Amino acid sequence: MHTVKRKIHGPASHGKPGTRGRALATAAEILRREGYSRLTMERVAAESGVAKTTIYRRWPTKAALCMELYLEVAGRELHDPDTGDIASDLRHIFNMVVRLQTRTVAGPAFIGLIAEALSNPKSSASFLAEFAERRRELTRRVLTRAIHRRQIRVDTDVDLVIDALGGATTFRLLQRHAPLSRKFADALVTLVLSGCRTPRASRARQEI
Amino acid sequence: MHTVKRKIHGPASHGKPGTRGRALATAAEILRREGYSRLTMERVAAESGVAKTTIYRRWPTKAALCMELYLEVAGRELHDPDTGDIASDLRHIFNMVVRLQTRTVAGPAFIGLIAEALSNPKSSASFLAEFAERRRELTRRVLTRAIHRRQIRVDTDVDLVIDALGGATTFRLLQRHAPLSRKFADALVTLVLSGCRTPRASRARQEI
Repeated sequence: MHTVKRKIHGPASHGKPGTRGRALATAAEILRREGYSRLTMERVAAESGVAKTTIYRRWPTKAALCMELYLEVAGRELHDPDTGDIASDLRHIFNMVVRLQTRTVAGPAFIGLIAEALSNPKSSASFLAEFAERRRELTRRVLTRAIHRRQIRVDTDVDLVIDALGGATTFRLLQRHAPLSRKFADALVTLVLSGCRTPRASRARQEI
Repeated sequence: MHTVKRKIHGPASHGKPGTRGRALATAAEILRREGYSRLTMERVAAESGVAKTTIYRRWPTKAALCMELYLEVAGRELHDPDTGDIASDLRHIFNMVVRLQTRTVAGPAFIGLIAEALSNPKSSASFLAEFAERRRELTRRVLTRAIHRRQIRVDTDVDLVIDALGGATTFRLLQRHAPLSRKFADALVTLVLSGCRTPRASRARQEI
């Protein structure tokens, strides 16, 4: 978590340098120590020394602040590995996602956001849609590229594949019925990818 | 919803006949009309005419009441189709699950339970584990049978397959980023099952 805090403290790209970073780092610290339900905008202001009006101007709600925090940490933790092989790319990505969810402040931020959205489904529909779409971007790009490279079938339903991969991962995060581990991520990618292989690729795999 | 209400009103298997059914039917009606956040034990007592002490004796928390309601509706809506073919069995089951989540009171009950569990992760860990396990029973039984019948590979990771199927379905229910439809359920089963096929079965499919 210290890494997260240090990096968020760096120069901000918008507004008065440091103000955004200080507020985000304070929110991360509260989330990490006490969870989403104990996070309030008042505490972020008091503990970061940033004026409440400044905080509200940038983030009208606690959910907006947490979404920015999540996306900032995700943007730093996740990248497109582009190894040249779709199985290897997806294994890399879902291992990064498991780490993101279990080892960084993105985990409690995500759980809090989902809980809040579910408690107020009507008011949070558009927020949830934007958040979902931004979290799907990387896997979508990697799968689309694999289609162009003919590593998976041209008729692959990219959204369905993202749901099977991301859904299983989110399921374990939210329900905690089984470990969210590296072994899980690797096996999940192998399972789901089998259904998208081109006939040539899957015959070659069977002959090995 | 009328079906649900009528059936819940039937003779109860425990306790004073009708009391349990009346309380569950009232809870279902509140959930359906106003959602989980507006459901309170006080309202269930007032609107069902069942004494508050009776309700609390049977269900110590609102979550316990909703879990019983969910499992009761699920027990009525879901059954083992045992068609002799695993693809057909799973398509049946996940179409029933989609119907359960989108067309019955089990949908709002489920969303409310997950939201509450996420808001209080420590206190609800054992509750969530029991709920998860009971929701996995049917798919686990069907997949285990398919292994014995050699319709899927003997080394199939049953829990992983349940996570991919159930996770994707839950993901769409909670996040609402794409429709939870019959077409989705069928395509999901085809995708995930491709990764569990015995070599003979998957070669036969490719030759068709």
